[in-house]
Amino acid sequence: MIIQKTENSRISTFDPSNFSFGNTFIDHMIICEYENGKWGDVKLVPYGPLQFSPAMMGVNYGQACFEGMKAYKDKDGQVFLFRPEKNFERINKSAKRLAMPEVTEEMFLDGLKALVDIDREWIPEGEGMSLYIRPLIFATEEALKARVANKYMFAIVATPAKMYYTEPVSVKISDHYSRAASGGVGSAKAAGNYAASFYPTQLAIEEGYDQIIWTDDATHEYFEESGTMNVFVRINDTIYTPPTSEKILDGVTRDSFIQLAKKRGFEVKVEPIKVKDVVAAQKNGTLKEVWGVGTAVVTTVFEALGYNGEKLDLPRLSDEESYAVILKNDLVDLQTNLAEDPFGWRVLVDHAMETV
Amino acid sequence: MIIQKTENSRISTFDPSNFSFGNTFIDHMIICEYENGKWGDVKLVPYGPLQFSPAMMGVNYGQACFEGMKAYKDKDGQVFLFRPEKNFERINKSAKRLAMPEVTEEMFLDGLKALVDIDREWIPEGEGMSLYIRPLIFATEEALKARVANKYMFAIVATPAKMYYTEPVSVKISDHYSRAASGGVGSAKAAGNYAASFYPTQLAIEEGYDQIIWTDDATHEYFEESGTMNVFVRINDTIYTPPTSEKILDGVTRDSFIQLAKKRGFEVKVEPIKVKDVVAAQKNGTLKEVWGVGTAVVTTVFEALGYNGEKLDLPRLSDEESYAVILKNDLVDLQTNLAEDPFGWRVLVDHAMETV
Ligand SMILES: Cc1ncc(COP(=O)(O)O)c(C=O)c1O
Ligand SMILES: Cc1ncc(COP(=O)(O)O)c(C=O)c1O
Repeated sequence: MIIQKTENSRISTFDPSNFSFGNTFIDHMIICEYENGKWGDVKLVPYGPLQFSPAMMGVNYGQACFEGMKAYKDKDGQVFLFRPEKNFERINKSAKRLAMPEVTEEMFLDGLKALVDIDREWIPEGEGMSLYIRPLIFATEEALKARVANKYMFAIVATPAKMYYTEPVSVKISDHYSRAASGGVGSAKAAGNYAASFYPTQLAIEEGYDQIIWTDDATHEYFEESGTMNVFVRINDTIYTPPTSEKILDGVTRDSFIQLAKKRGFEVKVEPIKVKDVVAAQKNGTLKEVWGVGTAVVTTVFEALGYNGEKLDLPRLSDEESYAVILKNDLVDLQTNLAEDPFGWRVLVDHAMETV
Repeated sequence: MIIQKTENSRISTFDPSNFSFGNTFIDHMIICEYENGKWGDVKLVPYGPLQFSPAMMGVNYGQACFEGMKAYKDKDGQVFLFRPEKNFERINKSAKRLAMPEVTEEMFLDGLKALVDIDREWIPEGEGMSLYIRPLIFATEEALKARVANKYMFAIVATPAKMYYTEPVSVKISDHYSRAASGGVGSAKAAGNYAASFYPTQLAIEEGYDQIIWTDDATHEYFEESGTMNVFVRINDTIYTPPTSEKILDGVTRDSFIQLAKKRGFEVKVEPIKVKDVVAAQKNGTLKEVWGVGTAVVTTVFEALGYNGEKLDLPRLSDEESYAVILKNDLVDLQTNLAEDPFGWRVLVDHAMETV
């Protein structure tokens, strides 16, 4: 790895109790270029703009995919990643579906650790605090031809993160727009999937909802995901979540919730969820909770489902009663080293950069 | 418009009889930035890279759409655009679906004309020659949040173009992969649609085909498009093409072919095309031609359709018999001022830049 430390650290301008998530960038970033069929050196460099042409293929043809993951600081200042190998596997799954070169485990994990290590001061401490990390691969070749590119960049950028707004939200069950096609790229973290979701989300917001529950594009009879989260439904005391598929992103948080729920002895069924079964359960009072999970927010609890022009209210459970809240706490405690880690999910980030 | 002419024209290095399409760029480009809710000045500047962060939202979330159009030089050296108002309308339709700001007619058309005018020397003359022009809009804001961006760039870049390879090709009728979801972004020229098509196309190539005929994602029973072209089928002497929809791009070439076919008195039916009807017509000998149309290649004639593991051969018609060839010639003659223009499709690009 080639390391070029910044000579103008911005850390003194960073106030961990008052910063804006998503556009405060840490001092450094990782970059690595792909050309002539192979990846070059991984470089740790000061964060900042690079030279790109408006003709770059990543922008013109959307040949770009990314990951979202976090690093957490415990009360002793130790820094941990959470299941980073899952993100490594997934970025390569996404890359493959978009006909992009896969990255090596070394590039991904060593790059990640070096970046988090060198900028560990940027990780805010305390409840809900973390560093949000964005690895991405995108086509950099300048060419106006809709074909697989020959040049790419792998990059890792990061921004300090705090607890998202976590009041319960209301979500519209989509009856027209959809996120993924059968035989499409829904299971990839493909850049284009996100832009496609913005307009339908805006329309849902205009109708008085906060977010969308995506349903299958052919019939709108089955739950797929919610916003940029995987979705869970609890009917009586059974938790349901749809199986992952070509249309559903295989979320790390989803998988962790399933394992944590089983550990607690909760019944979890991974099976297709029919909109009409959820609506019927709401009507007969057996629908207890619906929530979304993902790295960014961990969990968003839903207070109402919009269906067929109707707002179906969900019960408001106490924190003790709510499986969503119980499992969220289990997960956050594990991530931040407040609980045992029987699964081996935490990965300590060593102090290696001091010697550089 | 702010005009900054290059001081290092590369035109002397350009050999119109020997250049590479798609990565030879003309001397200038148009750029215009959107911030605080409005577009700034349109600028004509030397073509080249700009400063962008790997955290730019256009790359991370695929908030990017584009157009593809051409300028043609006639035998007297006059330069024409072809139906540019259609591309203007379509880029805004795409922008809307991706929750991006629309561009004004002035930005789009004046930018286009100024660029083509100043770099008219780059337009190669002769049969099949043209300038391929790429207007695009993409999110430039640096932020790691999956939401609508606040900063954008509108750009126009261009590359000299020559006739594509136009030998008949064989295409696989897709039975698993798909290009567009119901309720998705298929009718937008969204960047992400193209990356999504690369891997399925690679697989089709490995199976011995050149391209894919996309079918509906739910049943694969209906033709949608072919590669990045709209598709036409001729059974006996009737031409069929699917109606445009949320899943099918409303192609300028498609529309022009329909109008030119009607002008010639050919029967054209705009209606859904069933895979099984095409296969049956091939078996009973009534299937005469299947072809794709788009700005880049104008027309690609298919020589075989891959269906269910079988290669169904298509008749090889002479140029006089082929509706695809007849209509292609009608269109190219109109575009290059070799024929009358009863439709008012040609737009002359004035010499305005000499006075600058
Ligand atoms: C579409 C989509 N679904 C689900 C998720 C949740 O995945 P993860 O738990 O790995 O963050 C994400 C990413 O955050 C996503 O973008
Ligand atoms: C998906 C797709 N379909 C069809 C077309 C043809 O459209 P046009 O004739 O406007 O070039 C294009 C663009 O070239 C396209 O990208």
